[in-house]
Amino acid sequence: MHGSQLRVAYQGVPGAYSEAAAGKAYPNCEAIPCDQFEVAFQAVELWIADRAVLPVENSLGGSIHRNYDLLLRHRLHIVGEVQLPVHHCLLALPGVRKEYLTRVISHPQALSQCEHTLTKLGLNVAREAVDDTAGAAEYIAANDLRDTAAIASARAAELYGMQVLEDGIQDDSSNVTRFVMLAREPIIPRTDRPFKTSIVFAHDKGTSVLFKVLSAFAFRNISLTKIESRPHRNRPIRLVDDANVGTAKHFEYMFYIDFEASMAEVRAQNALAEVQEFTSFLRVLGSYPMDMTPWSPSRGE
Amino acid sequence: MHGSQLRVAYQGVPGAYSEAAAGKAYPNCEAIPCDQFEVAFQAVELWIADRAVLPVENSLGGSIHRNYDLLLRHRLHIVGEVQLPVHHCLLALPGVRKEYLTRVISHPQALSQCEHTLTKLGLNVAREAVDDTAGAAEYIAANDLRDTAAIASARAAELYGMQVLEDGIQDDSSNVTRFVMLAREPIIPRTDRPFKTSIVFAHDKGTSVLFKVLSAFAFRNISLTKIESRPHRNRPIRLVDDANVGTAKHFEYMFYIDFEASMAEVRAQNALAEVQEFTSFLRVLGSYPMDMTPWSPSRGE
Repeated sequence: MHGSQLRVAYQGVPGAYSEAAAGKAYPNCEAIPCDQFEVAFQAVELWIADRAVLPVENSLGGSIHRNYDLLLRHRLHIVGEVQLPVHHCLLALPGVRKEYLTRVISHPQALSQCEHTLTKLGLNVAREAVDDTAGAAEYIAANDLRDTAAIASARAAELYGMQVLEDGIQDDSSNVTRFVMLAREPIIPRTDRPFKTSIVFAHDKGTSVLFKVLSAFAFRNISLTKIESRPHRNRPIRLVDDANVGTAKHFEYMFYIDFEASMAEVRAQNALAEVQEFTSFLRVLGSYPMDMTPWSPSRGE
Repeated sequence: MHGSQLRVAYQGVPGAYSEAAAGKAYPNCEAIPCDQFEVAFQAVELWIADRAVLPVENSLGGSIHRNYDLLLRHRLHIVGEVQLPVHHCLLALPGVRKEYLTRVISHPQALSQCEHTLTKLGLNVAREAVDDTAGAAEYIAANDLRDTAAIASARAAELYGMQVLEDGIQDDSSNVTRFVMLAREPIIPRTDRPFKTSIVFAHDKGTSVLFKVLSAFAFRNISLTKIESRPHRNRPIRLVDDANVGTAKHFEYMFYIDFEASMAEVRAQNALAEVQEFTSFLRVLGSYPMDMTPWSPSRGE
């Protein structure tokens, strides 16, 4: 599909799950580490990279809203998606035994995803949060810490010369992260294979707007795979005047929807034309092939 | 509304935003710190506390899914809600000047919410993630760290003998967290003041289920204040067999909805009866008075 030296930006250091997602999305690509999500966007915008691969939701942790914000603040297009099972390992320096450990470090989400398993392993050690999983492994190796373990991928163990003390330590085996691939140009949507389209919209006033929007899809038999209301960044509070109830306040929402259709289909074009009638803001983030590779659970199951 | 010595469990250490939410929800309560969210649930279930106060969503960060999971795994009822503007300060030990700082520590979300302001202040120092905001202040005070600042509340500065170097350092002033109050028994819903009801549902099969569910509210003029699809923890992947497209996979979702009606209203009862027809799982998390206190932006604005 792409040349072997496609340059793909990801957030994190080598051994990060995002690097694995970049490799799954674009085999044989040159993966370019970036220290922040926004830097990965900029790398593509400035032609330093050809694509960026960005996590947008996790089956346990939910949507990564910060990345949706970045999608809205930048002009890149979603050109694909890839789902990656998250398989956490407990890593330590060679020769270190579990009895030596006094603390475990990792990203806060990885720590919480392994909480019960760590306790079951008899590891009642201090847990400390750091910025990322592979970075935790790198830190232990760089500082020769023989009392500290990291939660990270098996690939991080290889890269930083560490051993895998325990394999598959996540509490819930159905831990999958969905990534999207971003490019400067949209791809031409097709109809010869299953496509998915991601949109964002907002409205100022009116009742049952969401219901009307969903009807535009339901009456055309278009399935939704994601829907989410989101407090509107710049105007989170709306004051409602009502003689009976005084002044109420609540979050003002934006909505994210993914639906199973290609923008090349007339029914999708008609649905969006209807959505536009009911909303004050509408943006198509991308229309792209669905990730159809068979999903395999964590290794060892 | 409640006795002055109501015991209210919250996650964090004194000075945490959750403690402030407990105090706003129940003035003069005895706030009980818990080191994990689940411990706060257990405190109420074991009659150690009378209420728990739990953050469920933030205007920038989105829903805190882990706490929705805990709501489903426990039997407590939502009996109220409270919205708290988040006002971050930069704290250091007395006498420490900004020029001395080599790092800033806080909860990862607080660090990312202040990223641009820290850079604007010329603080190009290391940022390190720790478990919570007030805990970061406590750690600096306990270890007498004169090269480290914390991002936390002004109240944390008071409690741990620190000074406020900068006030209101969040990048986005409209940063509000919504908390819910939990109790062992539901409250009796009323109709003499505005109520909100929170539900969770899921379905196994069928098309346009969400559309049908929303119609149950739209046709009764019941407004929604929140809707969110969520990958189903135990079964995140559904294999769809379709002769044309092969085997697709996608997340299997649960849905969270908040709507503006009291369960004491017949229209809400009828709507839920209809929702139950279309879904295979439905739970009312609580019907409770809306937080109607006027919202005030961060201090100093």
